[in-house]
Amino acid sequence: MKKRNFNRNIYLNMKSLSEAREILFNRFNLSGLLKEERIDSVDSVGRVLAQPVYARASSPNFHAAAMDGIAVKADATFGARETNPKKLIVGRDAYYINTGHVMPEDTDSVIMIENVNALDEKILEIEAPAYPWQNVRKMGEDIVATELLFPRNHLVTPYCVGALLTGGIFEVSVKEKPRVLIIPTGKELVDWQGTGDDKFFSLKPGLVIESNSCLMGKLAESCGAVYERSDIITDDSEKIKEAVKKGVDGGYHIILILGGSSAGSEDFAKQVILDSGEALVHGVTIMPGKPVIIGAVKDKPVFGIPGYPVSAIVVFEQFVSPLIAGMLGQPEKQKEKIVALSSRKIPSKLGIEEFLRVKLGVVGKKMVAMPLPRGAGSITSITEADGIIRIPENSEGINYNEPVEAELLCPLSSIENTIVVTGSHDNTLDVLADHIKKKGGSLRLSSSHVGSLGGLMAIKKGVCHLAGSHLLDTEDGTYNISYIKKYLPDISVKLVNLVIRDQGLIVPRGNPRGIKGIEDLARGDISFINRQAGSGTRILLDFKLKNFGIDPDSITGYENEEFTHMSVAVAVLSGAVDTGLGIYAAAKALNLDFVPVVTEQYDLVIPEKYFESENIKSLLEIINSKKFKKKVLTLGGYGTEKTGDIITIKKTELL
Amino acid sequence: MKKRNFNRNIYLNMKSLSEAREILFNRFNLSGLLKEERIDSVDSVGRVLAQPVYARASSPNFHAAAMDGIAVKADATFGARETNPKKLIVGRDAYYINTGHVMPEDTDSVIMIENVNALDEKILEIEAPAYPWQNVRKMGEDIVATELLFPRNHLVTPYCVGALLTGGIFEVSVKEKPRVLIIPTGKELVDWQGTGDDKFFSLKPGLVIESNSCLMGKLAESCGAVYERSDIITDDSEKIKEAVKKGVDGGYHIILILGGSSAGSEDFAKQVILDSGEALVHGVTIMPGKPVIIGAVKDKPVFGIPGYPVSAIVVFEQFVSPLIAGMLGQPEKQKEKIVALSSRKIPSKLGIEEFLRVKLGVVGKKMVAMPLPRGAGSITSITEADGIIRIPENSEGINYNEPVEAELLCPLSSIENTIVVTGSHDNTLDVLADHIKKKGGSLRLSSSHVGSLGGLMAIKKGVCHLAGSHLLDTEDGTYNISYIKKYLPDISVKLVNLVIRDQGLIVPRGNPRGIKGIEDLARGDISFINRQAGSGTRILLDFKLKNFGIDPDSITGYENEEFTHMSVAVAVLSGAVDTGLGIYAAAKALNLDFVPVVTEQYDLVIPEKYFESENIKSLLEIINSKKFKKKVLTLGGYGTEKTGDIITIKKTELL
Repeated sequence: MKKRNFNRNIYLNMKSLSEAREILFNRFNLSGLLKEERIDSVDSVGRVLAQPVYARASSPNFHAAAMDGIAVKADATFGARETNPKKLIVGRDAYYINTGHVMPEDTDSVIMIENVNALDEKILEIEAPAYPWQNVRKMGEDIVATELLFPRNHLVTPYCVGALLTGGIFEVSVKEKPRVLIIPTGKELVDWQGTGDDKFFSLKPGLVIESNSCLMGKLAESCGAVYERSDIITDDSEKIKEAVKKGVDGGYHIILILGGSSAGSEDFAKQVILDSGEALVHGVTIMPGKPVIIGAVKDKPVFGIPGYPVSAIVVFEQFVSPLIAGMLGQPEKQKEKIVALSSRKIPSKLGIEEFLRVKLGVVGKKMVAMPLPRGAGSITSITEADGIIRIPENSEGINYNEPVEAELLCPLSSIENTIVVTGSHDNTLDVLADHIKKKGGSLRLSSSHVGSLGGLMAIKKGVCHLAGSHLLDTEDGTYNISYIKKYLPDISVKLVNLVIRDQGLIVPRGNPRGIKGIEDLARGDISFINRQAGSGTRILLDFKLKNFGIDPDSITGYENEEFTHMSVAVAVLSGAVDTGLGIYAAAKALNLDFVPVVTEQYDLVIPEKYFESENIKSLLEIINSKKFKKKVLTLGGYGTEKTGDIITIKKTELL
Repeated sequence: MKKRNFNRNIYLNMKSLSEAREILFNRFNLSGLLKEERIDSVDSVGRVLAQPVYARASSPNFHAAAMDGIAVKADATFGARETNPKKLIVGRDAYYINTGHVMPEDTDSVIMIENVNALDEKILEIEAPAYPWQNVRKMGEDIVATELLFPRNHLVTPYCVGALLTGGIFEVSVKEKPRVLIIPTGKELVDWQGTGDDKFFSLKPGLVIESNSCLMGKLAESCGAVYERSDIITDDSEKIKEAVKKGVDGGYHIILILGGSSAGSEDFAKQVILDSGEALVHGVTIMPGKPVIIGAVKDKPVFGIPGYPVSAIVVFEQFVSPLIAGMLGQPEKQKEKIVALSSRKIPSKLGIEEFLRVKLGVVGKKMVAMPLPRGAGSITSITEADGIIRIPENSEGINYNEPVEAELLCPLSSIENTIVVTGSHDNTLDVLADHIKKKGGSLRLSSSHVGSLGGLMAIKKGVCHLAGSHLLDTEDGTYNISYIKKYLPDISVKLVNLVIRDQGLIVPRGNPRGIKGIEDLARGDISFINRQAGSGTRILLDFKLKNFGIDPDSITGYENEEFTHMSVAVAVLSGAVDTGLGIYAAAKALNLDFVPVVTEQYDLVIPEKYFESENIKSLLEIINSKKFKKKVLTLGGYGTEKTGDIITIKKTELL
């Protein structure tokens, strides 16, 4: 038995992150690499000084009055006291002076105007002596000409501009910005600039908008570098080689080949680097980011950057960013760190260092971390993340409630002002999130989706402020109340209605299978996609099936589960299935048709202890606003007649 | 008795910081103030979204293979196991596929190529079943078209650019940048652009280079605004009024009048604001920053910004920066905070909230805060600061070793990598600081000056890593050793020589008084400036005076003290005194003459417990380097023959 020759590259021995970094930094000598350029001091904010800067002017460059008053020679005032005031002659013993003015010759102190009695235009009286240099800013008090203002490699801030100008430094030598050449490769890539911006944008299946080059470029800029992006090369190794050669010969300091860094048959980056120079590392035991290549061509660092966006980001931040910092003589950027408690158990692979994206929020007194999707292809898993938890190589994962260190991706103050929502998903939560941000300030809504029952469990565990829920009591037709009493007996909560919404069968445009209702699901020719157990929609389905006397086993696809309404709608849109149960808003968003099944209640479950907080008050204000309701109604399939209604459910008294 | 009419303004009732902020934010409605503009998504980093952004494209927009391998229908693989492999026909049951490619119709999972045995070109064998959707990135897994990508008021990051392009969003609506008009006023001001950049730059006493407009402008830019700077107006209230009018009518969102905001006879800002609109606040109980004016002209905020640079910075950050953030719908910038222990007692005025600039460093396990000069005129007190401690209105100050909260001005990692030096000052410490920064990385040297004995006390208190010292034992002519044994009996230290240096009398160019040595100080016609008690130079002077039998009382100015060699040199340069004792380097730096008195030893005292640390090792490496010694010798007045020599002084054994 032989395996088909897939023309696969072979990873060099995989390196750990620290090994790979050591190889990288030992290979390239970064100091003195960048040239100097002279620029105006006022343009130097964010730049790095190439030379130490010594002041040319002192500040003040004269002895200056620090108060409005009279300038005197302190000696001449000795002995003055309330019972024996001393007279001073204007123009001989004393001189009127304003703040900032030059001290007259032979004076060394200023008496505040409030402490001077003017007997007439010529004669003043004081009731206390001055001491030498009182209320005087002495020459050089702030800056002495020739003194070091800033050492080389100093990063210039707005404050520094003030000191530079004050010290008489109007031009400075700074390091040129490192230049990064970015070469996007891959035959599936489409340049965004060629696609137009019309409303009915669509992309042929199999094609992907090239975005990593801009993403990497903007990251490079945020590190103090500049970038150029070459044209997209469609998996042609000769052309990639040519682009790399142009880069290393053309004065670039770093070359990034995007895509094709893995070991597949269409992955050319490694061969290009081997043909042009040497490969130092191929494969690092990190996730995302494993298939990175670190190479050297004519003594310049050339990277093979994996194509998945989060892999590319991790590789950039672990290797490229510190390389740029090193060239600029700057310390590696460190993210602020905090300790958070994991909202659930997160298994992780031994032997791999994982960069797990998490949402963060303060619930009660706990900083809680909620893991986001782990796929390297999910760019939203990092744009939605507030932090990154590194799960070390030698760990099999994180336990529920285990304290772990998170590197912050946003200011701590935002995290402290986050309302953490989980439970069932509804599109109006996005409207809510937008309306909260519209108010300005630091309040945010952070939502993740675990189904209605999952939401109640999250409240029980104390890992969210509130949960979206639409759990139908099949006995009495009420929503949520009986479930709360059963699952949260020890917690008093408020149940706030967010919306009434239509649930129904999402079907392709034109309803080609002519589905009329739940009863058709068992017809035999219908493929179905289900929601996960514990979701309100699943409970609703099972209730309806029972009503109709339909055996779940008779439904094709009953066992396949999705986690959100939108995923169900996507499954229908893609043709993978004929139908699934979901909300009208999801069908409408994707321009699908909708067969109504039931109108249901979608509530927010809020523990009483959070109900009086400022954040929740702001949230309720928005829910009760006309603007919010109006926007919700435009989505279609929603009713707002109960929106904002509150039911109090006290915890079961212990008998 | 009448007071001279100084035509002084009167402060409105002074407000506390929180009162003044409340007045400001209640007066102006910031939401909806800024217009929208459409820009390319790739240019939107750092900008704020004016509208929520919904995805136009899904990602993936097709079911895509997530691995290299074969695409199959999971159903068709059920039952496969090692003992009973299943055969698949290429082109019917299985299709070769690469990562990222479109899944063929009627397939729903990918089996990794490693797990496929190719019997021949047509027939494959598998030993385990696939489960549905394994190794498949489903359509919409990352982004579903029509879903909210980012709410309005979202600040765009490089990551977001990736998500925007991926979601098919190539243009976004962002808020225009707030426009700030900056009007520098004051007749003492000189524009840096008119002064040329020749080497022998000098400024007439009484004149000051205008720097606050650039400082404020760059701060505005760092908040996401743009600024324009009007010409300098030399204290002409009509012209200032005109400039303000132009600003409020000309589409600026905020006007800053720099200077003249106090209550002196030449302070015009208040009158200008009163004549043009209304003054909401004049005078806030903060230091620096007290004389701020907050006004409203035609519903636009107009500020009178104090002229001292640190006052201007505090006012900008407390009032202007949050105003800009508010317009942009952003939370107010919060500085990272840490808790530090004060290195000494710091008294502060009741009723005033003080913004104290401090250096920070980690000594042993303590985060230590060392206060910097408190004058609002000292721009270097903020460029050298690592943090700001706010001493509240109701506090009389901070005690030694008291834990206080500091707002960070630089990354915590820099502070953690700071070598804290104190004690006697020597210019070669600046050379050392520059050479450390030259190496790149995050290591820094932070030095403050408290005299040699003060340095030993700082070591005793554990608030520094090392201290510069040149304490002469007048009995045996050695340096430092006997003092260390006396003052640090419980601490084992290493004494590392930094330099040998010349001490002598600093005199004006040409030595007009013909001073030949210490013996001339008592001549009667010489005015002298002394160093503070406890400084090595003071001990040296007193020793020499005793040798010559000179009574200190016979020296004019013996009682006047300065804290650094450079201050002594400045006093001589300014003509305030005829001479002072100091190092040659200080005289040379200011182009003064020098009468040598003695050659002395300047050492670094380093407790043994820090001696083996990486940071101190790096420091010693530099001290022992040829480059460092060479640079030191160019300063003049230094010898390096003992540089790097180490003496160990063990703590006195307790008997």
